[in-house]
Amino acid sequence: MGAPQLRTPTPPARIVRLELAYDGTAYAGWQVQPDVPTVQGTVLAAARTVLGDPVKLTGASRTDAGVHALRQVASLTTGAALPAASIARALNATLPADVRVLEACEAPADFDARRHARGKRYAYLLDTGRVAAPLLRRYAWHVPQPLALEAMRAALAAARGAHDFSAFCAAPGRHAMPVCHVRAVHVRRRKHLVAIVIGADRFLHHMVRNLVGSAVAVARGAHDPAWFAAVLAGRDRRAAGVTAPAHGLSLIRVLYLPVRCA
Amino acid sequence: MGAPQLRTPTPPARIVRLELAYDGTAYAGWQVQPDVPTVQGTVLAAARTVLGDPVKLTGASRTDAGVHALRQVASLTTGAALPAASIARALNATLPADVRVLEACEAPADFDARRHARGKRYAYLLDTGRVAAPLLRRYAWHVPQPLALEAMRAALAAARGAHDFSAFCAAPGRHAMPVCHVRAVHVRRRKHLVAIVIGADRFLHHMVRNLVGSAVAVARGAHDPAWFAAVLAGRDRRAAGVTAPAHGLSLIRVLYLPVRCA
Repeated sequence: MGAPQLRTPTPPARIVRLELAYDGTAYAGWQVQPDVPTVQGTVLAAARTVLGDPVKLTGASRTDAGVHALRQVASLTTGAALPAASIARALNATLPADVRVLEACEAPADFDARRHARGKRYAYLLDTGRVAAPLLRRYAWHVPQPLALEAMRAALAAARGAHDFSAFCAAPGRHAMPVCHVRAVHVRRRKHLVAIVIGADRFLHHMVRNLVGSAVAVARGAHDPAWFAAVLAGRDRRAAGVTAPAHGLSLIRVLYLPVRCA
Repeated sequence: MGAPQLRTPTPPARIVRLELAYDGTAYAGWQVQPDVPTVQGTVLAAARTVLGDPVKLTGASRTDAGVHALRQVASLTTGAALPAASIARALNATLPADVRVLEACEAPADFDARRHARGKRYAYLLDTGRVAAPLLRRYAWHVPQPLALEAMRAALAAARGAHDFSAFCAAPGRHAMPVCHVRAVHVRRRKHLVAIVIGADRFLHHMVRNLVGSAVAVARGAHDPAWFAAVLAGRDRRAAGVTAPAHGLSLIRVLYLPVRCA
């Protein structure tokens, strides 16, 4: 019998807060799934290469297939001692170019990017040119019909505040808590591009895309703004408009209480 | 012996002026080459499908591999009688999504998009963020170093006016006429994005990318603006800086004398 094998003691796990940007075009969304590329799976694979197992990764938002992020936040749990700035550099050297680590810093030991998020902001882009712009084809929904943006703003104004958003939820039965507090809605035009920015404490499944689909229906003149308010009040998904396509949507911000990061 | 076969007389050729936008990422440039996808080849193939042979297509600019266009102009010669607006619709139904026909109209019978162009304007995009933005990775050159834009503007100001641009030409021996008249140079910053817009009556091969490469060298502090002027005056390509990568460049405008299109 040999001497007992020497083992490096497992260092205590620490949590690194990552800010990530990604082009969602090539991914089946954030969340790991078998047999398809996902953003979480891609970052986890890079983290395993850089830091070794075990690693754990929790994203603030489970973005859908094809949805982009300018600033997703994720908590990465690892036992490795590599400084956070080195982790960011090593991950970027390992990740494909469509996923980037913008920032990495030490977070408090209890930090959870998902549970601690106090709000999120999404931007939805519409390409309103008569012909779809090739350079925007992955990042904006092409809506060539004339859009009445004042009507769109009037419709979306009804969404401001705390409401039961079941009418704009993909799976209404699914959410035990269908009330969200929409804090900000902005509609801005710049030449052929229209950006709809929606901020809330939390979002139901497909909520932004469903709000945008119905807001576009109003802007096209298919309904008036009062219809939008009535749909919201009715809490019936079947009364609302189409779900806007995923590729126009980007997560642009996740909000936390101050000082969540060293 | 049967009766002589009836033949539809070949209609006289007409020229349709096309305005095109494309994402150059997937193409080996504008000009048709064997065995590689090109924009001209792609539009010609679509035109043959829609209009039948013979078709001829001349672009105002022979954009390099990977270079984009927001508004390339091309003259399409065809014997088919389909109205120009229908040609645009049919081409867009046939072309891949990264090439679009923005406009099509009847042009004078002698119109030649290349020979009649009186000027062109290009935009070059720099992504100056510390980490490259994934959504810009196909459309901007990532330059994470701090850039002194005033120094860049001072350098590029030397390019204004009529000069022999041999110092910024890929193949200096090639151009019998190395003098171009640069009419406009603009450098604009918007957050992490810097746009360099250069307009001239004509451009030498790689001229914009070479001007940008040297302008970035000045903005990084590797040279002062006077160096740029001296390089231009010296007419020696070897004295200039690197060629900026193709993917940051977009053709944004081709200028003609008024009323070239019905």
